[in-house]
Amino acid sequence: MSTPLTVALLGCGTVGGAVLRLLGEQADDLAARIGRPVEVAGVAVRRPDRHPEVPPHLLTTDAHGLVTRDDVDLVVEVIGGIEPVRSLLLAAFEAGKSVVSANKALLAEDGSALHAAAAKAGVDLYYEAAVAGAIPMLRPLRESLAGDQLRRVVGIVNGTTNYILSRMAETGHGFTEALAEATELGYAEADPTADVDGFDAAAKAAILASLAFHTEVTAADVHREGISAITATDVARAAEIGCTVKLLAICERVVNGGGDSVAVRVHPAMIPTTHPLAAVGGAFNAVFVEAEAAGQLMFYGQGAGGDATASAVLGDLVAVARNRVAGVAGPGVTTYAGLPARPIAETPTRYHVGLDVADRPGVLATVAQEFARHGVSIATVRQDGHGDAATLVIVTHSAPDAALSATVDALRDMPAVRGVTSVLRVEGLS
Amino acid sequence: MSTPLTVALLGCGTVGGAVLRLLGEQADDLAARIGRPVEVAGVAVRRPDRHPEVPPHLLTTDAHGLVTRDDVDLVVEVIGGIEPVRSLLLAAFEAGKSVVSANKALLAEDGSALHAAAAKAGVDLYYEAAVAGAIPMLRPLRESLAGDQLRRVVGIVNGTTNYILSRMAETGHGFTEALAEATELGYAEADPTADVDGFDAAAKAAILASLAFHTEVTAADVHREGISAITATDVARAAEIGCTVKLLAICERVVNGGGDSVAVRVHPAMIPTTHPLAAVGGAFNAVFVEAEAAGQLMFYGQGAGGDATASAVLGDLVAVARNRVAGVAGPGVTTYAGLPARPIAETPTRYHVGLDVADRPGVLATVAQEFARHGVSIATVRQDGHGDAATLVIVTHSAPDAALSATVDALRDMPAVRGVTSVLRVEGLS
Repeated sequence: MSTPLTVALLGCGTVGGAVLRLLGEQADDLAARIGRPVEVAGVAVRRPDRHPEVPPHLLTTDAHGLVTRDDVDLVVEVIGGIEPVRSLLLAAFEAGKSVVSANKALLAEDGSALHAAAAKAGVDLYYEAAVAGAIPMLRPLRESLAGDQLRRVVGIVNGTTNYILSRMAETGHGFTEALAEATELGYAEADPTADVDGFDAAAKAAILASLAFHTEVTAADVHREGISAITATDVARAAEIGCTVKLLAICERVVNGGGDSVAVRVHPAMIPTTHPLAAVGGAFNAVFVEAEAAGQLMFYGQGAGGDATASAVLGDLVAVARNRVAGVAGPGVTTYAGLPARPIAETPTRYHVGLDVADRPGVLATVAQEFARHGVSIATVRQDGHGDAATLVIVTHSAPDAALSATVDALRDMPAVRGVTSVLRVEGLS
Repeated sequence: MSTPLTVALLGCGTVGGAVLRLLGEQADDLAARIGRPVEVAGVAVRRPDRHPEVPPHLLTTDAHGLVTRDDVDLVVEVIGGIEPVRSLLLAAFEAGKSVVSANKALLAEDGSALHAAAAKAGVDLYYEAAVAGAIPMLRPLRESLAGDQLRRVVGIVNGTTNYILSRMAETGHGFTEALAEATELGYAEADPTADVDGFDAAAKAAILASLAFHTEVTAADVHREGISAITATDVARAAEIGCTVKLLAICERVVNGGGDSVAVRVHPAMIPTTHPLAAVGGAFNAVFVEAEAAGQLMFYGQGAGGDATASAVLGDLVAVARNRVAGVAGPGVTTYAGLPARPIAETPTRYHVGLDVADRPGVLATVAQEFARHGVSIATVRQDGHGDAATLVIVTHSAPDAALSATVDALRDMPAVRGVTSVLRVEGLS
């Protein structure tokens, strides 16, 4: 067989280690599928002494020198974070290398600039592993669905929060206990902020929305709410109406007389237990897609883990290597549609609101009036009396989010309302 | 914008009509995504007078003339069947045209020859619509999972049989009644043989196995059993052990000391209601994939319908058009692994067997002995007595299919066995 294609590996943590191992184990198959063998030219790490598993002559701390080396064809980046990675990848493109990355934060912040640099150099940029780990999701969006119009992409794309919410539903525990359990079992990191507060999911939502709507969407365009305020009561209320609570990344094309826009948001929501996403438990990920012609699709699988993520990295590596062998670049990513981002305040959503109210005639009427005053139409109300107090559980129809949240604020100030016990958005109800 | 890419459309039934309509409706978006506009050069049909929806100057009965016309760049084939389509596509390749096809029968019979002809001409052959309709499934197998080793692909790939089996489970009806209902509602064709006897699923299984295992697998290599022998008793027995009956297309890599092989089969089977495929109801399709590194994945969506299938066709059309604009061909399909097909007799499976037996001491021992004599180990037995008769429900461990079926034959001849009331394979039980 002919000269090997050479790969520079940037970073060698859990995913990088798995990539390195699989490149060895699968060498024959990869060579047959690509048409040329693949060889590792070097592995850039910060602390070479911490990587006894890597042959010493491959290790280097000079990442920039490695990615610009003449004998390197392809760069695999699994370091993560914005800098120095952005500079390294731009240098790699300029030196004519194709890049496979698993870096959601960087792609969500600066994807367009990276795509432009890759296109200018006539090389590839692929990043299947950046969203939903092993699930082949970005390539279907980039290519398989390229002949269709997407309406919505709704994903469970963060395993940590899905594990916590699944455990809250199973045990009746509150958020704090469930987080402690997740940390103990290794499903949550010591500092869980990126997962729990939705930053991780927001980066993935930006990437999904960019590809789905051919529009530049960055993490800053994504409305983001985490799950730390979710209570055992919220979860119980969800169960009462046949729902379960999930942290969703929702990317929607909002069709409007004045021109379409794109609404991208990450927040917890109640979804019916009959929805395909409701069955996605534990640390699994899934992405639900609604397209004009294709209808409803769902992609399901492992969202994290060294080997699973490495599978996505290696799939991309085969693609860019085949292109390199053929002397071409694959189809790039276009943002020709350039749809404006719609702020959350103007995005139509539905609310579930639980209230403790005084149990006396006329309270429901007063409460209902407050919804009407904000232009919010009520879908269902359930009233349960107990002593001199009563519980009202209200599910609204769809209305601009600002109107819904203003309604809740107004309810909090009403004398007849003793407390707002639960407020959560509702998705997927017909 | 530059000169249009021109498309020859072969066939204009439900799918072809939807393709034609969507090419018009989405013209601007397709042009932006491809980089050049797409124009229909002609539509080949058998009876032009039956297509008032097509502009008359585009209609032709000369399909061969159309696909070899100098001004045609791409061919979309939605006629179906083996001939004359094979000859037309070979002529198209020879004339340098890339092809998008939805033709499962042809791909399952002669995929390798077609791929070879496309590779020789340096053009593309894509056929996402041939398996599981709108679900982007083949491209993930061809490309996203190209860096992984696949173990199993298990699909519900025929909507008609899935509808019939779903209705049998819901209503308790037998096969004949459920088929009649499916025919009335348009879910089954007037001659349902291709669906009900598993021919359609077998063609799709051959295509999935070829891509999954980089091996030439044709429909003739696929063991095929349909659902017409499934009784209401089978469905009830399945429910008793927490299972549901599905027609499965199963593609497995069987690992063996003497060298790996590929076992591909289509047959009804009981699967646990907790299995992700169990929830795939009605006319939906889903494909479940187990890969070495990626773990478990599932792809879910609409398996048929004009618009859904057209979405897959148009996705492929964008891909081949982009390649045409770039002056390249995409990665081909390799069969380098060349794994032998394993006959069903030697393929490990598990059986569920229901027996009516005489209710007297020693019957269970005699029956158990018969299983042991064939080297089949029993996983669970349930015995229910009623009068002088009893029911035995046995689920085996995994054993070569021939041993299992020989056991059932022997049971039928045993004096203590009054009748074998139900025999079905079991999949996905741990």
